[in-house]
Amino acid sequence: MTIDYDSFLSSAAIKMRGSAIRKMSGIATQARDLVSFAPGFPAPDTFPWAEFQEIARELLSGSDGSVLQYGPTRGFKPLLERVRGIMEARGVRTNLDRLLLTTGSQQGLDLVARVLLDPHDVILVELPTYTGAIMAFRNSQAELVGVRQEADGIELADLDDTYVRLQREGRRVRVLYLVPNFQNPTGLLIGLDKRRALLDWAERRDVLIVEDDPYRDLYFEDSAGEADVRPIRADDSGGRVIYMSSFSKTLAPGYRVAWLDAPEPIAEKFELAKQAADLTVGTLDQRIVYEACRRGILDRQAPMLRAYYQHKRDVMVAALQRELPEGVTWPAPRGGFFLWATLPDAIDADAMVPRAVDHGVIYVAGDAFYVNGSGQQQIRLSFSAPTPERIEEGVRRLAATIREELAYPRVEPPAPAVL
Amino acid sequence: MTIDYDSFLSSAAIKMRGSAIRKMSGIATQARDLVSFAPGFPAPDTFPWAEFQEIARELLSGSDGSVLQYGPTRGFKPLLERVRGIMEARGVRTNLDRLLLTTGSQQGLDLVARVLLDPHDVILVELPTYTGAIMAFRNSQAELVGVRQEADGIELADLDDTYVRLQREGRRVRVLYLVPNFQNPTGLLIGLDKRRALLDWAERRDVLIVEDDPYRDLYFEDSAGEADVRPIRADDSGGRVIYMSSFSKTLAPGYRVAWLDAPEPIAEKFELAKQAADLTVGTLDQRIVYEACRRGILDRQAPMLRAYYQHKRDVMVAALQRELPEGVTWPAPRGGFFLWATLPDAIDADAMVPRAVDHGVIYVAGDAFYVNGSGQQQIRLSFSAPTPERIEEGVRRLAATIREELAYPRVEPPAPAVL
Repeated sequence: MTIDYDSFLSSAAIKMRGSAIRKMSGIATQARDLVSFAPGFPAPDTFPWAEFQEIARELLSGSDGSVLQYGPTRGFKPLLERVRGIMEARGVRTNLDRLLLTTGSQQGLDLVARVLLDPHDVILVELPTYTGAIMAFRNSQAELVGVRQEADGIELADLDDTYVRLQREGRRVRVLYLVPNFQNPTGLLIGLDKRRALLDWAERRDVLIVEDDPYRDLYFEDSAGEADVRPIRADDSGGRVIYMSSFSKTLAPGYRVAWLDAPEPIAEKFELAKQAADLTVGTLDQRIVYEACRRGILDRQAPMLRAYYQHKRDVMVAALQRELPEGVTWPAPRGGFFLWATLPDAIDADAMVPRAVDHGVIYVAGDAFYVNGSGQQQIRLSFSAPTPERIEEGVRRLAATIREELAYPRVEPPAPAVL
Repeated sequence: MTIDYDSFLSSAAIKMRGSAIRKMSGIATQARDLVSFAPGFPAPDTFPWAEFQEIARELLSGSDGSVLQYGPTRGFKPLLERVRGIMEARGVRTNLDRLLLTTGSQQGLDLVARVLLDPHDVILVELPTYTGAIMAFRNSQAELVGVRQEADGIELADLDDTYVRLQREGRRVRVLYLVPNFQNPTGLLIGLDKRRALLDWAERRDVLIVEDDPYRDLYFEDSAGEADVRPIRADDSGGRVIYMSSFSKTLAPGYRVAWLDAPEPIAEKFELAKQAADLTVGTLDQRIVYEACRRGILDRQAPMLRAYYQHKRDVMVAALQRELPEGVTWPAPRGGFFLWATLPDAIDADAMVPRAVDHGVIYVAGDAFYVNGSGQQQIRLSFSAPTPERIEEGVRRLAATIREELAYPRVEPPAPAVL
């Protein structure tokens, strides 16, 4: 008897789709000489290896059995205390009843989806927005509705128009999801006035804001400062904001340590959901991250990383200006890992991928970041991982790809004959 | 404006409840001199600390950046190859398209719930069964229906009767969840004939079996052998079984590395669900576990652990026989971490907890493991973590608790007066 496995799948599983970024990472590992601008990986040569090695040696001496034991679901308490301190340094007063460690920020997104979203609920997201958030929210079978962005982030008028339209349609809008600092994929920063206006709006419309902030420490000092990255949460006296951040971009992503800050009744539900999801964040990982905080390593990393990634941004922008044909535009990133380029109308970024791979370069096509089916002319270029030399080489290859695509458009396959 | 956070919760979140075991762990860390038989923790003095230290030192040299980078969702390929080998040694032929690493077995349970269960579906479980599975399955809003157990595990007649009754009621039964080896909480082992009969039954009734097997390596050689722990999956030629196991009990739980083996179409969905849940298992954790396999450390651990936990079982059984009043019974565990005791009828194990804490001992009350509201007379005692001396001391305290409970039953609080 052959088994019809589809008949065993949940309705959520039937609809599950993979991430375009992960697919690109697959391509990148298969091909040989490929410059990958696809995944938003931090650069491993920035990781404090020697310090990690020493910390691991001490932790694994065997003198403290709890280093490799099951631990509490909320997380290792001294690390939670450190996170409270980090939040305070970002202008946010919080306490341990609101805090929870998560297995990377991806788990934070997943917990938000599980605890706050029912099938057919609406969650508002930026156009474009982070693909990992799209995946997590879609798994709850909620509907994702997009709101346009402008130079200083999400458009307030479009936000409220969208809300009113949905309300008129009888839809329930529970949550607005935002990446205010150096957004993945656009690199945009939400303006300070707009941050306060968003809080007022959430209060007026009785909506919760999920503020996802992994890139906050990576502002480029030539064009952004600490004041520009002030979390929305910092001015949230009304309990409207759920805030998430991570150690993945500042220490290392392999540890899978991130955190959530939420109003207590929601934090309690996050804890229960996490308990059923994976019991606890990896214990050794938590302890290493804690030691990296306690010993001042995290504080030393941040300014180094700002200069390091700013330099790579400079290299990429200069190469793009030098190599790319006219008609390609982008906002200059003021922090983070990403440059978001708009190509000439004649180009379909997704369809151009095979030609790019032929030329030895890869990017993520923009449509993966849009919940409304647009983004065909856009590409996300990550400058974080490749070396400056590889960035320059990759941009040359990208320029050649685009020139060829403009000169020799792909022939559309003929429409099937109607019989 | 005060926010009504309950109005923002998903219907799953409204119903979420915590695990009794985790609650007990909380009590155990608060009180001072308490012998804890509650959590099923492995003993940290068995962890191969020196080897882990050396492995971490080598991995964190900085020569291989991928050790702390994001990695593929399915897992580190050389570790997946090792898992394939472990499966082969257990009598299971599999391949990498069927395998997936998970963030502990708890994530495996969660993925099963997400990918296979819709609200109102039925999943059959043993009476009693593992609380972590109950939590994960309940979050999908499926209904858990229990099947009785006897000395050699689940009762086949009750299984089929339950199936037929549910089918007659128009309910859909998708999955049967089993822990065949040294079940948590009963310590029972499903007999070999029964394993084959379960496969036939699943085929006949078109049901999938989820086989959860974390304790397989921990058989006690005085009463069980390799042949007794043969996975159901080993004889599954029809693609009926999803198998899960873990490194948590044999290497260390702090690493959060476990695995799933499933028919390819289901494994693909597990991968997508995991991608949205946390992207990847901790990378350093995977690499350490891989090295522990490659260097033969895992193979050396297993026989040592069998003797180690068998000795603790012996100490607990001897102490129980010596100290406990008549009327307390238990099946002698032939492996694993747990002893499952039935108390005299007059006792309510959950209500006795405060008295036990007063005496300085803690256990998990049986009702946490039952999906049908029973288990009031039962307790789970973990002999894995405490030292032999503490086991003896804890059993003396437990005996005093039970004697006192029998001599001075708690007075029920008076019913509130009707006004």
